[in-house]
Amino acid sequence: MSHLIRAAAITSPHAPVEIIEIAVPALEPGAALLRTVFSEVCGTDVHLHHGRLGGVPYPLVPGHVSVGRIETMRGPITDVEGRVFHEGDMVTFLDVHETCGACYQCLVAKQTTRCPKRKVYGITYGAADGPLGGWAEQIWIKPGVKLIRLPDGLAPETFIGGGCGLVTALHAVDRAEIRLDQSVVVLGAGPVGQSIAALARLSGASEVIVIGAPDDRLAYARRMGASHTIGLGDQGATARVDEVRRLTGGRGADVAIEASGAPDAVSDALDMVRDGGRVVICGHYTDNGTVQVHPHYQINRKHVEIRGVWGCDYSHFHRAVTIAARHGDRIPWREMVSRTYGLDQAGEALAAVEGRNMLKALIAPNG
Amino acid sequence: MSHLIRAAAITSPHAPVEIIEIAVPALEPGAALLRTVFSEVCGTDVHLHHGRLGGVPYPLVPGHVSVGRIETMRGPITDVEGRVFHEGDMVTFLDVHETCGACYQCLVAKQTTRCPKRKVYGITYGAADGPLGGWAEQIWIKPGVKLIRLPDGLAPETFIGGGCGLVTALHAVDRAEIRLDQSVVVLGAGPVGQSIAALARLSGASEVIVIGAPDDRLAYARRMGASHTIGLGDQGATARVDEVRRLTGGRGADVAIEASGAPDAVSDALDMVRDGGRVVICGHYTDNGTVQVHPHYQINRKHVEIRGVWGCDYSHFHRAVTIAARHGDRIPWREMVSRTYGLDQAGEALAAVEGRNMLKALIAPNG
Amino acid sequence: MSHLIRAAAITSPHAPVEIIEIAVPALEPGAALLRTVFSEVCGTDVHLHHGRLGGVPYPLVPGHVSVGRIETMRGPITDVEGRVFHEGDMVTFLDVHETCGACYQCLVAKQTTRCPKRKVYGITYGAADGPLGGWAEQIWIKPGVKLIRLPDGLAPETFIGGGCGLVTALHAVDRAEIRLDQSVVVLGAGPVGQSIAALARLSGASEVIVIGAPDDRLAYARRMGASHTIGLGDQGATARVDEVRRLTGGRGADVAIEASGAPDAVSDALDMVRDGGRVVICGHYTDNGTVQVHPHYQINRKHVEIRGVWGCDYSHFHRAVTIAARHGDRIPWREMVSRTYGLDQAGEALAAVEGRNMLKALIAPNG
Amino acid sequence: MSHLIRAAAITSPHAPVEIIEIAVPALEPGAALLRTVFSEVCGTDVHLHHGRLGGVPYPLVPGHVSVGRIETMRGPITDVEGRVFHEGDMVTFLDVHETCGACYQCLVAKQTTRCPKRKVYGITYGAADGPLGGWAEQIWIKPGVKLIRLPDGLAPETFIGGGCGLVTALHAVDRAEIRLDQSVVVLGAGPVGQSIAALARLSGASEVIVIGAPDDRLAYARRMGASHTIGLGDQGATARVDEVRRLTGGRGADVAIEASGAPDAVSDALDMVRDGGRVVICGHYTDNGTVQVHPHYQINRKHVEIRGVWGCDYSHFHRAVTIAARHGDRIPWREMVSRTYGLDQAGEALAAVEGRNMLKALIAPNG
Repeated sequence: MSHLIRAAAITSPHAPVEIIEIAVPALEPGAALLRTVFSEVCGTDVHLHHGRLGGVPYPLVPGHVSVGRIETMRGPITDVEGRVFHEGDMVTFLDVHETCGACYQCLVAKQTTRCPKRKVYGITYGAADGPLGGWAEQIWIKPGVKLIRLPDGLAPETFIGGGCGLVTALHAVDRAEIRLDQSVVVLGAGPVGQSIAALARLSGASEVIVIGAPDDRLAYARRMGASHTIGLGDQGATARVDEVRRLTGGRGADVAIEASGAPDAVSDALDMVRDGGRVVICGHYTDNGTVQVHPHYQINRKHVEIRGVWGCDYSHFHRAVTIAARHGDRIPWREMVSRTYGLDQAGEALAAVEGRNMLKALIAPNG
Repeated sequence: MSHLIRAAAITSPHAPVEIIEIAVPALEPGAALLRTVFSEVCGTDVHLHHGRLGGVPYPLVPGHVSVGRIETMRGPITDVEGRVFHEGDMVTFLDVHETCGACYQCLVAKQTTRCPKRKVYGITYGAADGPLGGWAEQIWIKPGVKLIRLPDGLAPETFIGGGCGLVTALHAVDRAEIRLDQSVVVLGAGPVGQSIAALARLSGASEVIVIGAPDDRLAYARRMGASHTIGLGDQGATARVDEVRRLTGGRGADVAIEASGAPDAVSDALDMVRDGGRVVICGHYTDNGTVQVHPHYQINRKHVEIRGVWGCDYSHFHRAVTIAARHGDRIPWREMVSRTYGLDQAGEALAAVEGRNMLKALIAPNG
Repeated sequence: MSHLIRAAAITSPHAPVEIIEIAVPALEPGAALLRTVFSEVCGTDVHLHHGRLGGVPYPLVPGHVSVGRIETMRGPITDVEGRVFHEGDMVTFLDVHETCGACYQCLVAKQTTRCPKRKVYGITYGAADGPLGGWAEQIWIKPGVKLIRLPDGLAPETFIGGGCGLVTALHAVDRAEIRLDQSVVVLGAGPVGQSIAALARLSGASEVIVIGAPDDRLAYARRMGASHTIGLGDQGATARVDEVRRLTGGRGADVAIEASGAPDAVSDALDMVRDGGRVVICGHYTDNGTVQVHPHYQINRKHVEIRGVWGCDYSHFHRAVTIAARHGDRIPWREMVSRTYGLDQAGEALAAVEGRNMLKALIAPNG
Repeated sequence: MSHLIRAAAITSPHAPVEIIEIAVPALEPGAALLRTVFSEVCGTDVHLHHGRLGGVPYPLVPGHVSVGRIETMRGPITDVEGRVFHEGDMVTFLDVHETCGACYQCLVAKQTTRCPKRKVYGITYGAADGPLGGWAEQIWIKPGVKLIRLPDGLAPETFIGGGCGLVTALHAVDRAEIRLDQSVVVLGAGPVGQSIAALARLSGASEVIVIGAPDDRLAYARRMGASHTIGLGDQGATARVDEVRRLTGGRGADVAIEASGAPDAVSDALDMVRDGGRVVICGHYTDNGTVQVHPHYQINRKHVEIRGVWGCDYSHFHRAVTIAARHGDRIPWREMVSRTYGLDQAGEALAAVEGRNMLKALIAPNG
């Protein structure tokens, strides 16, 4: 009943990406098989390649956020509104699944993103588990994995242009609780920072200041919604803090969102926010080291609030699709994609993302 | 019209405390004169003695939180409920005053604690400005300074036992938003930490774990409301973190409140709080240096919230008096006072507080 | 494999309660069978008897909150901490189950209490479905139903004394966000109102004013934590509003919690709360009719916040057990139980609760 | 030193508006005199004309929100940023002033809008008090009244087009806490409802449904930001509720904001909001009678939150000016003004507003 498909795999840390064949299992009730349209090459995949994430079962097929068409299914499968999916539907899906619904994190703390049993497509599965990553011709949607239909008018290129970064950005912007007419500084001009700039502007922020490099990312940030940009190369951190203060009435921004992964950006964010403001930390998805913080000047006397953001749940994915559909004609998420690679070029795509030569690379496994 | 009173003054940084005479001005309408009963010797006074606070006009008369009896007044003066004060009333007052009500901080950000025009008894005035600190026989209540009557049944010793630390603790506990049955760890067993322990328990916390030294402070913390205490000397920070986790179901405390002023306590608090928990920083009222923080492990992945707490406003003072009156028979705030000194012994009192030989010292300027 | 047990059933609306026999099914993996110790007779059961709840499959076996001992199980079954249950353990369980985890309410709005697929022991099942209500010798715990162990030292009588009302009260008090030293008025002295009084006091409320009848309930409310009580018979609503204002500095209570089910109590609560205060409505679990509200005087000009409270989820049950264990020696939940009936007396128990002759009745199906 | 100016006054309830002369006092330090450019004719003025507000000292000069140029001043007068005002500056000002900063409402509850000592231009002053309403050639800015400069590029017509309704709308939208991609239904298409529609859209609302009449107001609402409009005449309340549900996935809107003043709109809002949603009530600024509410179906079981909104403080005024300046080129606030009247036509203007013949009328006292 099963058949073989081609996939690109990281066979072990630091090893070249290889094309392998994976057996697709017979579908159990509630399962589906997607014909992959696009899958992202994400910074997380770089970390996987370097062996920086613990407990990962190599060889694995990366690709946690993907778009595909339903090729076959053992239905009925319904979305959260109760509408039935059909073969041929263009969909994405929440990569995090099998949160247990039975532990303290799921039921008492109500933070499924910290459920110890959760599984993630493209990260926690080995290739031997089946086609459970997007760098493959087909993706096996296990029963219970949450499919989301891309609405008519939402091009797959637009949604995947936002992709993983858009979903993370939405969670960060939720945690930032931006109010109408507030000023927001975003530290980082990668995929997450770019979508934060767009969502902050959509949320009614007055000034949206993006700090990053290189210049073409800043130019793109302005198209995404930044009212001002500050380059990293031009000046030191102190000058950047001064510039943010100058742009915000001398007081600092109402909200600062760190989306760079640089430890120093945490301290810079604390310097750039106004007294009584809010700092959101969402760029440190992996261990990038420590930072010196000054409790008196940067936290206590400033009376600030600092919020970490970990992971995303279904609600963020659901709303991200809706937002991309509604605003995708005005906000150039599809321009985020620097280049689309075939399956055979996946190693090249990974190297390009690691080398920061591009904002985002996609894999189109079926050409 | 004016007369002279005796006061204890810090004449310049590091100089011995001296007894000076100060001229009490004629009272303008709305002003009053208190006969001082007790004034605190606070850690802030140690900082003043070391010249650590900028822009302070030496010589100055310390003592920002005090209790006294109204000796004379040019009334009517009313409290926030509109009730008139009378000569002989036992009162305290909000040391912070003359917040301008006209700046961005007061009117838009609504954080009067950051108003650049605010004045503080015992800190921002020089002795030449008049008797505007509590280490003096009389205290000049300028018009507009908010007096608060100590209710019948609230002994001055109980309120001043809580004093400045109780008011700060209340603000910190407000920011912590403790919910019924949550676990709270308090880092620091000084006057602020002790009152946090009491208020956390009153707020419905299940476990209240106080970390500090020496042993007699921990014994006192248990009388104040701590369910567990952990000594600093017994073990290293890692063992303390393990102990907190052990006491909180292996996950860490729902809330961690730093009240020690030690930079490392900020990092410890982040290690001791559970994923998705809340950390409040209220001990860093002056520059005690920096701390290494790990954004990935301690903020981002933990999805925590960190809140700084700066200063207090009238609401905290008002409620602190009510709380002391209501719970003062069960919570031994008056035991916080290690010793009461006469005016002539103020230098000795300051040295004792600096040497951490005692939890709290009072000055009783009128013997 | 199956056997027959005795249960008390409401065979149709208004019909007398009858003893029936129910077949206990063979246990599937993850299922358990409890030997029932106590099950509540709740106001909801009175509504069931009157046919006021839609879609109920008569005949049914009532009893949604119960305590029992695990008699047999097909384990392993673990609690949210991952600890394994054993035969003989004294447990309760969340009556609401089979929330789907796949709909808009579960995943986007994150309010499982509104999941259209949720099932409830003692309410949504017919007797033909098996022993899925507590008025029976045994209770079938279906796989996935959340068991909670009663900790050592928590008597079953104490927990079931709080019972359904304690869990509801905890949700209401959570929604009320009571802060230290606030005043709270509770409208209603039934099982929910009584536990609200206790939890409000535990949360640091200063004044807790309970309004209700008859006198013995008010006396009990004072033992539970009320600082003041106001009888319904003594005076009209206007006088009660005046009394609440008199007890709260003339301004009204900071928080008012309606727990009576009387429509007028909603309007009274709005009159009793201070400007800018919070009103929680948790007594209207069934259609008791409408109330006249004055938008200008009672909502708009008062700048109040009104919050409805519907149902409970696992977190409330979990915390309710912990709270009962921690405070059960000081708060007399077990006195809530007016009388315990055998299975054969279930009809009598129901009539007594309907007649408001007692605060709470229990069924002890095994004598 | 004083001189006489012309003003339009309501001499007593129901009496025709008359032109009177008022003496302008000599300016004390901190005071200024504005040459009035525009003053609004507001629904509140209709209430004043009908004698519906208590304690109003007739004859009075209406006009609480106004724009003018500083003609003379006894400065320096500074704004909240510390910038000095100059003669010739185009300004508006917060009509509410003399909040005491010394009462429970100001200092503990921190809701200056409920301060019993607050004064309001155009409402709480009699003509004998001086030119303290905007329907006059000049407006006396008393010391401490908060002036706000209209930034370059913000036409007075745009700001006053928003005017009082914009400031109220901002407060309502703040209380609504709209999140990105939420649906909002606005009940009422008057000046407040129109600005709510604009601000909801600016805040990231996906659907903004405005309900009102007549058709030209709905057409204007769509230009302001409504994505859908529903006419009052077309159908009954039940059909309108159905229409809102149809537009919001069958569940009802995430947020409903009542801005009509009709009592039934409160009940409609409760029917139109989704389970767990939020209802804001800001249209009931005066006594328009009562409404029947069903606690079970509309509050308790829906688990909703209802928030009243009373008055505005400086922060709302400050931010409203910034928002009008930033978005005034895209959002047609200036079209809100149906007609501008001279001082001699003030009675005609008032009648037109009362007759609901127009959305907004202005008085231009200096032609």
